[in-house]
Amino acid sequence: MDPEAMLALAVDEARAGLAGGGIPIGAVLIGPEGDVWGRGHNRRVQDGDPSAHAETAAFRDAGRRRSYAGSTMVTTLSPCWFCSGLVRQFGIGSVVVGEARTFVGGHEWLAENGVAVTLLDDQACVAMMAAFIADRPELWLEDIGE
Amino acid sequence: MDPEAMLALAVDEARAGLAGGGIPIGAVLIGPEGDVWGRGHNRRVQDGDPSAHAETAAFRDAGRRRSYAGSTMVTTLSPCWFCSGLVRQFGIGSVVVGEARTFVGGHEWLAENGVAVTLLDDQACVAMMAAFIADRPELWLEDIGE
Repeated sequence: MDPEAMLALAVDEARAGLAGGGIPIGAVLIGPEGDVWGRGHNRRVQDGDPSAHAETAAFRDAGRRRSYAGSTMVTTLSPCWFCSGLVRQFGIGSVVVGEARTFVGGHEWLAENGVAVTLLDDQACVAMMAAFIADRPELWLEDIGE
Repeated sequence: MDPEAMLALAVDEARAGLAGGGIPIGAVLIGPEGDVWGRGHNRRVQDGDPSAHAETAAFRDAGRRRSYAGSTMVTTLSPCWFCSGLVRQFGIGSVVVGEARTFVGGHEWLAENGVAVTLLDDQACVAMMAAFIADRPELWLEDIGE
């Protein structure tokens, strides 16, 4: 699967989150063979769970695993420090990022620490997130602790 | 509440986790007024949830909050990169760490980034974790992605 095809799965998750009244960030964790291990979207609003960032939700959805070698975390938005720390701690080898214009998390720190980071600068992701931030600024700032 | 009293609450959580068949790491998130916002322990085994590290469980238990200014994350063990990222992202001002002998996560990185870190080097915490690692090394390595 190429990065754009991976991102499309994460975008589907983000749109599902938005349709459910939530924050439109989606993520998919893909195994070394290209199989989807887990998927999820931000569920702060839906579950009242501040730890349910998209990447963490996808990681949780993948269940217990002995190794994350060769796996790829795909996310519509630059991963925050929490979700970047997740990638680093569990040795997830690659990250595909939809965009880092509306928010910059730790993707550069991950690259400095040996993670293969692909930043797609996808304009649909930018537009989706920019519209959400303009519409619900307080909710967005709550989600990133600012 | 002094750091030792805070740590005692986290140790209670760790022991509850161990008694439930889990990994003995506990955490408590304490608000600026000294009130306990949330508490939890590692629930990888109990819930089959690899994201349920103690600090993340305590953060989740505290529910949605607009600000974490002045709050303290208390944990029996040096927080891993995932949970250290949580502290940094949400602006949790202080961290109290029971011990960092059996595992070193990101507590020094947090200190470099403005978090007030208190490392207690508590021997009961060291003994509890050392015994667990000796007893269940594979489970422990799974929990930290190694």
